[in-house]
This record gives sequence, structure tokens and C-alpha cells, in this order.
Amino acid sequence: MDFLTVLGLAAATLTTIAFLPQMFKTWQTKSAKDVSFVMLITFISGVFLWLIYGIYLKALPIILANSITLLFNLIILWLKIKYR
Amino acid sequence: MDFLTVLGLAAATLTTIAFLPQMFKTWQTKSAKDVSFVMLITFISGVFLWLIYGIYLKALPIILANSITLLFNLIILWLKIKYR
Repeated sequence: MDFLTVLGLAAATLTTIAFLPQMFKTWQTKSAKDVSFVMLITFISGVFLWLIYGIYLKALPIILANSITLLFNLIILWLKIKYR
Repeated sequence: MDFLTVLGLAAATLTTIAFLPQMFKTWQTKSAKDVSFVMLITFISGVFLWLIYGIYLKALPIILANSITLLFNLIILWLKIKYR
């Protein structure tokens, strides 16, 4: 694997797993009032478009990273609505 | 511009501007205790790697989107530390 591929994979892994600690924090504290609802809706819409983009390009890394990011952010949105 | 380029630009725009409402919310409420510190650090590290990746590829859209996302998230991190 060349340097650029490793760099891209590291970047994709970090920007994907970043939402795990937010998910667990919201789950534990049962509070997400400081997390912007507009941010979540806008970000989820964007990640959904990235997913479609990846599917069009048949690019597995884009599909994988954005599916997981989409799932994590939908769970954060659900927790925010649940604990509002 | 073809459909795929428009789709990619729309996706990049949404996942970039998404952090604006979070920035303004934190600025206004002076509170970000529900926003995960570990998420911010992990996400900022990932976006920084995406930026390096874009610079290596000389890909202006990747450079632009990730510079702005990095800036917004650094401001959110600064506000979180300031209002802790």
C-alpha cells in the first residue's frame, strides 16, 4: 500500500470513529442540548450525498466510511430527540 | 459540470457548512458540555490528515472543504475550552 492510500485510510478512519465518543457521551449523560440540531441534519444530509457519490463511483472506501458515519450520526440524532 | 461533480460539490458543501450552526449555538449559549472533547480531537486530527491528503493530490476541492471544516472545528474546540 502506498503512502497516499495509508494517509487516506487513516483520515477516513479518524473522521468516522470520531462520532463514537459523542454517541457514548450522549448515551451516558442522557443530554445533547448543546449539540446543534441544524448541524446534525445538515451533516447527515451531506454524508448521505457522499454515500450516493461513493455508490456511483463504486468506491468501497467512500461507501464504507460514509455508511458508518451516517449510522453513528443517525444514532446521535435519535438520542438527541429521545433525551430532549 | 456533470452530475457526479455536482453531487460531490453538494456533499462537500453540506458536510462543511454543517459546523456553522454548531459554532453559533456554542457562541450564543456559551456552553458545549454535551459536545464530546474526544470527538472534537479525533475529528480535527482526521480532517487535518484529509487536508494533507488533498495537498498531496493537489485536489483543490479536498483542500478547500477540509481547510474550512478544520477552521470551524478548531473554533468549536476553542469555544468548548473557553466556556468549560
